[in-house]
Amino acid sequence: MGSLVLVRHGQSRWNLENRFTGWWDVDLTAAGEEEARRAGRHLADAGATPDVVFTSVLRRAVRSANLVLDELGRAWIPVERHWRLNERHYGGLTGLDKAETEARHGREQFLAWRRGYATPPPPIEPGSEFDVRQDPRYAGFGRDIVPATECLADVVARMVPYWQDRIAPEVLAGREVLVVAHGNSLRALIKHLEGISDEDIPALEIPTGVPLVYELDGALEVKDKRVLEG
Amino acid sequence: MGSLVLVRHGQSRWNLENRFTGWWDVDLTAAGEEEARRAGRHLADAGATPDVVFTSVLRRAVRSANLVLDELGRAWIPVERHWRLNERHYGGLTGLDKAETEARHGREQFLAWRRGYATPPPPIEPGSEFDVRQDPRYAGFGRDIVPATECLADVVARMVPYWQDRIAPEVLAGREVLVVAHGNSLRALIKHLEGISDEDIPALEIPTGVPLVYELDGALEVKDKRVLEG
Repeated sequence: MGSLVLVRHGQSRWNLENRFTGWWDVDLTAAGEEEARRAGRHLADAGATPDVVFTSVLRRAVRSANLVLDELGRAWIPVERHWRLNERHYGGLTGLDKAETEARHGREQFLAWRRGYATPPPPIEPGSEFDVRQDPRYAGFGRDIVPATECLADVVARMVPYWQDRIAPEVLAGREVLVVAHGNSLRALIKHLEGISDEDIPALEIPTGVPLVYELDGALEVKDKRVLEG
Repeated sequence: MGSLVLVRHGQSRWNLENRFTGWWDVDLTAAGEEEARRAGRHLADAGATPDVVFTSVLRRAVRSANLVLDELGRAWIPVERHWRLNERHYGGLTGLDKAETEARHGREQFLAWRRGYATPPPPIEPGSEFDVRQDPRYAGFGRDIVPATECLADVVARMVPYWQDRIAPEVLAGREVLVVAHGNSLRALIKHLEGISDEDIPALEIPTGVPLVYELDGALEVKDKRVLEG
């Protein structure tokens, strides 16, 4: 059967500044660009030859995918970009400093928002400078697709249909499929693939710029999983 | 109706070395990357907001498109990459130095190959190091899609169906369409759009990294054409 390679985008400007990002479209830092190139080199060393790539519509993922493919000499493969692979929407926390947020709301509330499976942060204020509901990239869809906030369970609910309809058929057709996305959209995908419980999934850490290679059988069961590091 | 923006990729390594390139997949130079970014800035200054981008499957065009979109902050738009937008295949001239080729074959023959509408160069030798018939990017198609050589008339014949089937419907749907491609695939497209004669089209020079903006009506007639420079 086919294979599936997951890559989490490299460091973004707001990773560096320790701010909640979500659907806000910040760019990679130079270090983040280098992480993406390194992921591409690890894949090249492992003999990977992806046939198709899926990314979110956020530039930190799109640009990471471009850099991975440049390193692989496969800039030419088909790409599909979709909001269902976006990072979790952090609601009213978007743009806030994580340390300040913890200091203001206390560690328990902070951890519930960050790592509770079904605890969304408060919704983003309408008119907030970080509200992306008017962003043209979502105008081709019903306006209700842009959430006001999301917990990880919400990400699973909106990501799995995209996996089932667009990505999985490529794997089942025997292709090597590359997905370049975000901490929480990849967490949602791995939860679905590996059948990880609601309780355990929030603690799963996905390193940036380190390809995870899955071999799947015809029932999309995981037969092998490798981590391509240094 | 919709609009159509054409961008010829920036300088490649073989542009710099004055070699025939065609379907050989050389990368951009640093100057070529900057040309692409500059094209993106010109488009941004003109208020362009492309909705969809089409490129060839050659990395100098794919990467130019990525750089244009990065500058526009529109890395997220849908992209389709297709061999029908590739550069003309230069057959047995691929990889040769242009000045040496002219010295060896004489100016008349050289000009017939470079600028004759219906004069293909000799076919590439089977087994030539520059023969791309085994390249995996063409493996998803019948192997007969990779030519052994092409004249500009051949490029028109293989490019126009792609324009009609994939690009024109986007323009007719009212979208802003960006095409990032090559000297001869763009020449073929402009010939078709503007109804330029077989005799006149070979002399049409398309500058690298300078966006050409067409406004088209519902019959795909050219209503306006602008060149976005400096």
